[in-house]
Amino acid sequence: MKLDPGPLPPALRGFRFSGVHGGLKRRGRRDFALIVTDRPAVAAAVFTMNRAAAAPVQVAREHIAGGKLQAIMVNSGNANAATGEKGLKFAQWSCRELGSRLGVEPALVLPCSTGVIGAQLEKVPFARAVSLAVDGLSRNGFGAAARAIMTSDAYPKWAHRGASHGEGSVSVVGMAKGAGMIQPNMATMLCFVLTDADLASAAADAMLRAAVARTFNRITVDGDTSTNDTCVLLASGQAGGGRIAGPDSPGYDAVAAAVAEVMDHLSRMIIRDGEGATKMVDIVVEGAADTAAADAIARSIGNSPLFKCALAGADPNWGRIVMAVGKAGVEFDVDELSVDIDDVVLARAGTLVSEEAQRMARKVMRKDAFTLTVRVGAGSGTATVVTSDLTESYVRFNTAYTS
Amino acid sequence: MKLDPGPLPPALRGFRFSGVHGGLKRRGRRDFALIVTDRPAVAAAVFTMNRAAAAPVQVAREHIAGGKLQAIMVNSGNANAATGEKGLKFAQWSCRELGSRLGVEPALVLPCSTGVIGAQLEKVPFARAVSLAVDGLSRNGFGAAARAIMTSDAYPKWAHRGASHGEGSVSVVGMAKGAGMIQPNMATMLCFVLTDADLASAAADAMLRAAVARTFNRITVDGDTSTNDTCVLLASGQAGGGRIAGPDSPGYDAVAAAVAEVMDHLSRMIIRDGEGATKMVDIVVEGAADTAAADAIARSIGNSPLFKCALAGADPNWGRIVMAVGKAGVEFDVDELSVDIDDVVLARAGTLVSEEAQRMARKVMRKDAFTLTVRVGAGSGTATVVTSDLTESYVRFNTAYTS
Repeated sequence: MKLDPGPLPPALRGFRFSGVHGGLKRRGRRDFALIVTDRPAVAAAVFTMNRAAAAPVQVAREHIAGGKLQAIMVNSGNANAATGEKGLKFAQWSCRELGSRLGVEPALVLPCSTGVIGAQLEKVPFARAVSLAVDGLSRNGFGAAARAIMTSDAYPKWAHRGASHGEGSVSVVGMAKGAGMIQPNMATMLCFVLTDADLASAAADAMLRAAVARTFNRITVDGDTSTNDTCVLLASGQAGGGRIAGPDSPGYDAVAAAVAEVMDHLSRMIIRDGEGATKMVDIVVEGAADTAAADAIARSIGNSPLFKCALAGADPNWGRIVMAVGKAGVEFDVDELSVDIDDVVLARAGTLVSEEAQRMARKVMRKDAFTLTVRVGAGSGTATVVTSDLTESYVRFNTAYTS
Repeated sequence: MKLDPGPLPPALRGFRFSGVHGGLKRRGRRDFALIVTDRPAVAAAVFTMNRAAAAPVQVAREHIAGGKLQAIMVNSGNANAATGEKGLKFAQWSCRELGSRLGVEPALVLPCSTGVIGAQLEKVPFARAVSLAVDGLSRNGFGAAARAIMTSDAYPKWAHRGASHGEGSVSVVGMAKGAGMIQPNMATMLCFVLTDADLASAAADAMLRAAVARTFNRITVDGDTSTNDTCVLLASGQAGGGRIAGPDSPGYDAVAAAVAEVMDHLSRMIIRDGEGATKMVDIVVEGAADTAAADAIARSIGNSPLFKCALAGADPNWGRIVMAVGKAGVEFDVDELSVDIDDVVLARAGTLVSEEAQRMARKVMRKDAFTLTVRVGAGSGTATVVTSDLTESYVRFNTAYTS
């Protein structure tokens, strides 16, 4: 699905950006990005739950422990994952290399890599990329940075929202990348949300985790969880309105809402970019015994290859929905199942309503976005998962994209 | 993958078969099959674990409780699943209808349906199909029956083995159908294994369950579990050599081995027929903490869309293997991971061995069948899953195959 990312966000107080072709990718494509703050900034981050976490993720986990960052460094084209001790040493070296160029502590650098898994990075071209990127840092380099983190993405992904806080105004901007290997169990491959709000660590951490749970952890392209997923919230503190200490502080709700909206927008841009995807579908499960049961059913539907092929064909394939609900491993009574597609009532009490309903549902499904609501009983458990369709292009792309 | 099913099995003492075009499918294709024994036969069966089990499966579960069957009745083209109370009544009626034509108790009829989910069957054409099929019963109708149970299958699937028992010889023949919606959690969509051995119920049940665990429960095409999976073992008892009472009886091991071999062959024919599949791959996981952990890892690899696309491209994509192992949710140390493709050593201690190894692995992966061995540690847990590749044809087929 092609998507216009919209106008670039305005410059953000306290941040500089860079996105360059450092020579890690071929054909002159941008492959190296920096996000740098004028002073150490409050930072919170979540990372992949994949047990084979990439080397930069392992280093990033250590560096985020201090609660402050001054630079995020991203190379695209090579994930530095499954690279053993050598890859880990490389990620540590890369932080020292950038740190010395910027004059900041290596522990204030968050390293991120995305791309092919299992290949080693090399120091000479990487050091050249660092040098070029540092030289290119500017207040308006956001767009170049957002492009430099792309791999299989069809378009760059950014979003921005404003929030009022006291006398002042706060800006929240974000960028993300990702299209395939997407069922984040923490955050999508890479997402950086930046704000000039003055957040305490506790506030930053709370709003990041709440937003991730509602956005990135609810999307799936293919059920495959990346080794490199990283989602960072960075707050420069240069906006007015006073420090936001925690969830009960004035201003928290407004900034948290802006953060969540930016992340919701970015996560949906990733779904629309799902390799070869033509549709984005919200799967809402209601009436399950509890949240976990609802979530299991929603993911079983959202990851079913047969259901996703039916989406591609705009086919209200009731049978594949029943199958996917049934295989979720959750107790339910098929005779209580009801299904709606947007406002078309497709099935009630476990059976199709009419051929006319199927015809109307097919019409809704030709749209590029709609909601499938599945009610499985009378329980209070609900969950939403956002998914894409599975097309021949996904297979073609991933058969050719070689190691 | 095209596959020649080989010569038809020889006639089996005590069985008659039929496979006709009853008018349930269009264009004259066979859509109705019968397997009938001369006298009530010892029967064991396992069914889908999908919570939305089809109406005929619900009826079949009741009928198998008696441990004897005289007829298996299969219609293809309509699964009679997600059809509510009306579908259940239809399945019950269909057993009475066939029973009255054959002069057998309805409870000795096992009903099976396969095809589109969510559509009601109609009595008039179904009764006509029953009548035609009963008229067509013969000792050599096996091939016609095996063709009549097909839906999206590219070819019919059968196998036979002999076994010695005492003075006599025992025959085991089987037929199966299935290509998509395959991750049997009990048995594949439909599999009928027939023998003239004289088995007690306990022996039939034990050998069926042991063989299912080693064969049909270890294959996956798309991770989607059908609503209609049924696997039946039917023993006419007309071979010599004496009754086989249970697992410790003389003859049990020989017949059980033949049953397991027939089922292994049939389950692999289903994988090779995986919609659009071009390869069959055994995924062997070793060194996990226990069997459950090994199984979770093997299934995580075998169901990963990205890994399956890499198979289609004959790409030894080490990164996607690491990703799939890591997302299985099982504790492991990536630095201990080793991977072999047939006898090519691809990775040791968590890193690729060499580019030469990748080149050799690519060569092996161009074959239509090979084994991927993944060692994740020093534990004693092992598991095997057999999977197919994911090709554009799978998506094309399932986008067009409408409800």
